[in-house]
Amino acid sequence: MSRPSGRAADQLREVKITRNYTCHAEGSVLVEFGRTKVICTASVESGVPRFLRGQNQGWLTAEYGMLPRATGDRTRREAASGKQGGRTLEIQRLIGRSLRAAVDLSALGDYTLTVDCDVIQADGGTRTAAITGAMVAVEDALAVMQQRGWLSANKPLPLKQRIAAVSVGIYQGGAVLDLDYPEDSAAETDLNVVMTDAGGFIEVQGTAEGAPFDAQQFNSMLALAEKGITELFALQHNALEG
Amino acid sequence: MSRPSGRAADQLREVKITRNYTCHAEGSVLVEFGRTKVICTASVESGVPRFLRGQNQGWLTAEYGMLPRATGDRTRREAASGKQGGRTLEIQRLIGRSLRAAVDLSALGDYTLTVDCDVIQADGGTRTAAITGAMVAVEDALAVMQQRGWLSANKPLPLKQRIAAVSVGIYQGGAVLDLDYPEDSAAETDLNVVMTDAGGFIEVQGTAEGAPFDAQQFNSMLALAEKGITELFALQHNALEG
Amino acid sequence: MSRPSGRAADQLREVKITRNYTCHAEGSVLVEFGRTKVICTASVESGVPRFLRGQNQGWLTAEYGMLPRATGDRTRREAASGKQGGRTLEIQRLIGRSLRAAVDLSALGDYTLTVDCDVIQADGGTRTAAITGAMVAVEDALAVMQQRGWLSANKPLPLKQRIAAVSVGIYQGGAVLDLDYPEDSAAETDLNVVMTDAGGFIEVQGTAEGAPFDAQQFNSMLALAEKGITELFALQHNALEG
Amino acid sequence: MSRPSGRAADQLREVKITRNYTCHAEGSVLVEFGRTKVICTASVESGVPRFLRGQNQGWLTAEYGMLPRATGDRTRREAASGKQGGRTLEIQRLIGRSLRAAVDLSALGDYTLTVDCDVIQADGGTRTAAITGAMVAVEDALAVMQQRGWLSANKPLPLKQRIAAVSVGIYQGGAVLDLDYPEDSAAETDLNVVMTDAGGFIEVQGTAEGAPFDAQQFNSMLALAEKGITELFALQHNALEG
Amino acid sequence: MSRPSGRAADQLREVKITRNYTCHAEGSVLVEFGRTKVICTASVESGVPRFLRGQNQGWLTAEYGMLPRATGDRTRREAASGKQGGRTLEIQRLIGRSLRAAVDLSALGDYTLTVDCDVIQADGGTRTAAITGAMVAVEDALAVMQQRGWLSANKPLPLKQRIAAVSVGIYQGGAVLDLDYPEDSAAETDLNVVMTDAGGFIEVQGTAEGAPFDAQQFNSMLALAEKGITELFALQHNALEG
Amino acid sequence: MSRPSGRAADQLREVKITRNYTCHAEGSVLVEFGRTKVICTASVESGVPRFLRGQNQGWLTAEYGMLPRATGDRTRREAASGKQGGRTLEIQRLIGRSLRAAVDLSALGDYTLTVDCDVIQADGGTRTAAITGAMVAVEDALAVMQQRGWLSANKPLPLKQRIAAVSVGIYQGGAVLDLDYPEDSAAETDLNVVMTDAGGFIEVQGTAEGAPFDAQQFNSMLALAEKGITELFALQHNALEG
Repeated sequence: MSRPSGRAADQLREVKITRNYTCHAEGSVLVEFGRTKVICTASVESGVPRFLRGQNQGWLTAEYGMLPRATGDRTRREAASGKQGGRTLEIQRLIGRSLRAAVDLSALGDYTLTVDCDVIQADGGTRTAAITGAMVAVEDALAVMQQRGWLSANKPLPLKQRIAAVSVGIYQGGAVLDLDYPEDSAAETDLNVVMTDAGGFIEVQGTAEGAPFDAQQFNSMLALAEKGITELFALQHNALEG
Repeated sequence: MSRPSGRAADQLREVKITRNYTCHAEGSVLVEFGRTKVICTASVESGVPRFLRGQNQGWLTAEYGMLPRATGDRTRREAASGKQGGRTLEIQRLIGRSLRAAVDLSALGDYTLTVDCDVIQADGGTRTAAITGAMVAVEDALAVMQQRGWLSANKPLPLKQRIAAVSVGIYQGGAVLDLDYPEDSAAETDLNVVMTDAGGFIEVQGTAEGAPFDAQQFNSMLALAEKGITELFALQHNALEG
Repeated sequence: MSRPSGRAADQLREVKITRNYTCHAEGSVLVEFGRTKVICTASVESGVPRFLRGQNQGWLTAEYGMLPRATGDRTRREAASGKQGGRTLEIQRLIGRSLRAAVDLSALGDYTLTVDCDVIQADGGTRTAAITGAMVAVEDALAVMQQRGWLSANKPLPLKQRIAAVSVGIYQGGAVLDLDYPEDSAAETDLNVVMTDAGGFIEVQGTAEGAPFDAQQFNSMLALAEKGITELFALQHNALEG
Repeated sequence: MSRPSGRAADQLREVKITRNYTCHAEGSVLVEFGRTKVICTASVESGVPRFLRGQNQGWLTAEYGMLPRATGDRTRREAASGKQGGRTLEIQRLIGRSLRAAVDLSALGDYTLTVDCDVIQADGGTRTAAITGAMVAVEDALAVMQQRGWLSANKPLPLKQRIAAVSVGIYQGGAVLDLDYPEDSAAETDLNVVMTDAGGFIEVQGTAEGAPFDAQQFNSMLALAEKGITELFALQHNALEG
Repeated sequence: MSRPSGRAADQLREVKITRNYTCHAEGSVLVEFGRTKVICTASVESGVPRFLRGQNQGWLTAEYGMLPRATGDRTRREAASGKQGGRTLEIQRLIGRSLRAAVDLSALGDYTLTVDCDVIQADGGTRTAAITGAMVAVEDALAVMQQRGWLSANKPLPLKQRIAAVSVGIYQGGAVLDLDYPEDSAAETDLNVVMTDAGGFIEVQGTAEGAPFDAQQFNSMLALAEKGITELFALQHNALEG
Repeated sequence: MSRPSGRAADQLREVKITRNYTCHAEGSVLVEFGRTKVICTASVESGVPRFLRGQNQGWLTAEYGMLPRATGDRTRREAASGKQGGRTLEIQRLIGRSLRAAVDLSALGDYTLTVDCDVIQADGGTRTAAITGAMVAVEDALAVMQQRGWLSANKPLPLKQRIAAVSVGIYQGGAVLDLDYPEDSAAETDLNVVMTDAGGFIEVQGTAEGAPFDAQQFNSMLALAEKGITELFALQHNALEG
């Protein structure tokens, strides 16, 4: 097996995390997994959705979008077509669920964090890049909340753990880490994995596009994901504290 | 650990598959997993979507819905609110992807199979019940196509394999098979598994609602799913050929 | 004139009313007029619409839907097309208006009854079957309200009267009762009639699809409708008190 | 019983039919029933809807709207709210059905007549005024088609009959003709009747808003409607040929 | 240069302003610029939009529409297509902005004026006719508010100034005033100008459809607009006080 | 008068034009006017809209969007709210009209250029920055078309002229060039100007937010715009040919 990019099977693309990428959001990160580039902002607004009112907790929600020409062929602008597609909704539900596993909503107060992940260039793995970058944007936003007095300065930030995400797959019969678009579109199986920095799984979503996969392949992919996510946690750490 | 239903950890609910449930569709099945009841119809229409024209293959697509009062509290009717929610789109994408792994689209001719899965009573596991029942409806519809001369009578039905699906999860610390609603809403982890009758995985979608899960728990859940799906294949077999 | 079904001109199809058809709704009925099958649920929610607030009365509203393959050809799912069609809105307005004539809204308290009529199999007369079945579901829901203490146990249920509905028409020159789909699609005139069990008319909606009808034909149709609805009231009575 | 307007029970409001009210449409009529004013235009376009292609017939469809301040309180503009309400759809379906009974679609050729009925001032009875006025606009449009050579000059216009419509009701216990808004909002029963100039009924739609009505009241209302519509046919005749 | 209408380059079409055109609105004007006819109503409702609550001021907003056959070819009804087009939104934003320059919102109290401009016949210049006519409708509505005691009888009406609008353009190389449709569709440049009766500009919107225009042409057009608007102010004055 | 940014009245912000900003589009530019940053892509697709078929010309259309947190407060995502707002539609109509004045559509062949302008950071003047940057993206896309043989290599690119745009306004009584957000939100008058590199005006859109402006102020603003746009043409030239 030879990867189109020449990478080793267990090799991530070059990953960059740029904080304070835009100036208005409480947290704003440009995350790059090779040619995949996603702007992740975390916005703080006071108040919570109706279904949480009076429950003494905050909320976090996520939205996902792609610029129309982030992709090889132009995609129709969802604002113009009047609705978000199924893929978009599925991805933003995944991002939101994953990040809610990181944040201690019960210690967030009467605030809502809205995470926007907007892909400006797509080359496979946009959802996992988005989760990995948004984690940093959320942490920055929590720090801003503390600086502005919206969170107590005497308590730690309301974070339960960090999370990060990567895709793995079966390409030409072998397990590979961090699929780019040429691999992704030809992969037999595609698996998105979200983990905590304590080593637990938050989300595992695998789809056989071609031949079904077996338990052994599954475990090979999980092991690769674990390796890659460990590296991503180091990159998040460098970005935030390095 | 004691399940609310009193079932053993590896015990399915009572599953029933009733063919020819309604009279118009080429395939029509009522599938029941305990109190969860889903009408699955497979409709045959000539022609394929635009993106497949001229490619000499058929297509299969799926839609999912719930009657507003299939649930404990009334859910807003999606037709009235003007759009299908993210959960609905996510489920119907899963159903369609899974069934396309069962059907040999290249041998289907210029036809589209539309699978409608409508939940008339919900008690957990509606998506996996829908997949399991829709498989039978699709097989019935293919047989009708053959009887009507839309598929050659001299060839086998264009089926690559059968598929079935079940949910598993971690409930009170232990892995359990086929979660009903009381378990589902309290489960720490929820995993939906779609397999082929040759033992391969088509879809594995796991979400930690509470504590993250580890690789060992993951493999316990997969083993339970495999056991349950084997039983579902027997039930499909009885319904179709028994 | 010979009816496709072989029925006499003044003969209803076999009508069945099954209570408690699904388990969650306060009232849940499967109504069958021959092959036409409609699930009617009545759901109780506290509160009333904005335009009624502070007026010391309850409300009843209705929604209508059809499973996509309830019909001979598959109908597009309204949730997917993003709006309810004119026929759907017209029917659900009719159902709601009719049932509001049965319920004493001023004695209902601060509650809204939402009636959902979902056609799982269509063979003509779905709106009249829906009204006839929903009447029973509403009465069951009111009884549940009383059991739960939402309505006083010392007062009668807030019902002004029972209602039922049937279609009549001119088919091959003669008036016939309870048109099935083959008759409906060939009828010259189609008339939907809703009556109270005291013999009054609530709704009369007649449309000449082909030749106009005259006053004499009109009165023949009304007489047939009266006969059929009298039988429907007996069936409702048997279902509820028999 | 005394009518708010002082009219006799069987007396129409002053009805005016102004042809060529606007300059672009093939047929354009302002119809006034007292203070109710509706602009009815009939537009001719070549081609028919998809479901009629190749069937060698034309089509007629209708749309209905109200200016936001045609009513006592401002109504939300449907274009701004993003959909037509149920009442609007119900009315335009009625107008279209009624006018299709007047036009011989099989002799119309490959053309579609679109009738737009826009209420600029509402005082009850807008749908029946619209039908009565639109009949004249349609006839004018057919004549224009003949002048332009789109219809043969050697054949009569493709009209089967004229139609007109009026509302009747039970007000303070008695049957009255042509309800204005104060009567309409207080009426016990409201009945809209569409007839042909040969005396047949096309549509009869009666709703008991309060007490149910009986067969005798029904026949009184029909008789009043017949009287009023006879007068409307004379007014149409005067407008067109007078 | 010869104008299709035979008018002089600096000549307005015949302009008519008819007050109290419909009966329900607080202000209701039919404005005609030649064959362009627009019904302008001003409706008063208590309360202000959310973003203004508690700020002790009123609000004015505008909506614009066209009857489908106001134009030479039938335009699709925006209520049916489910959204207002870009041109409609652009025009109604212009009308609202312009009229808010005329009204002293800080003296309006907790009221919202909604201006509806509905074109019943279009022949170019509908937006400028709408602004000119709506000014009169707004002034009438303010007077009604005073009569009803919603505004103090001891203070002047909350008007800062009157406004009026006209279009000018470059047609066959020369500047012309008040373009009708044949000119508008052939013009090289189209300029809409809104002015106050004190001679100031509120809006100037110029678009080169063909060749770019230069500063000199620009000033010629502004001078024509100024002349025309002065005449329009006289017509408004005559309508209101004449 | 002192500008918040300390700039001279006739001084542009620092403007940067970065070509090939993203990798997929035929033309892709990041344009920065100070802190305002817009990604402008030009995408080439074969075929033209229906209304141009068979007319032997190409087409250019534009769409505009803002990331939700491009602004100081988070703006609702238009894809989620289901429609593009009036401001968005107005801006994208302006961008498209302006760029169509630059491109010789009659020499473009059967192709459509779709220009997407997406604001990733907003600080006033997004529409004029977008036009200025998109001009460069369009020119790059035309060159790519020529390289790929979609346009003849023997003819010049189908460009009639270059265009650029800037905003000017009256701030604290004086005319200023290139308003940033603090100025824009406090300006008495805001004017957007689009010019050709031959010195002609394409669009002039001025709005008095506060006091009306007079002809002299108008001409001062136009002169400032002309100065600024001349500088922008030099920057475009440097980016493209420098």
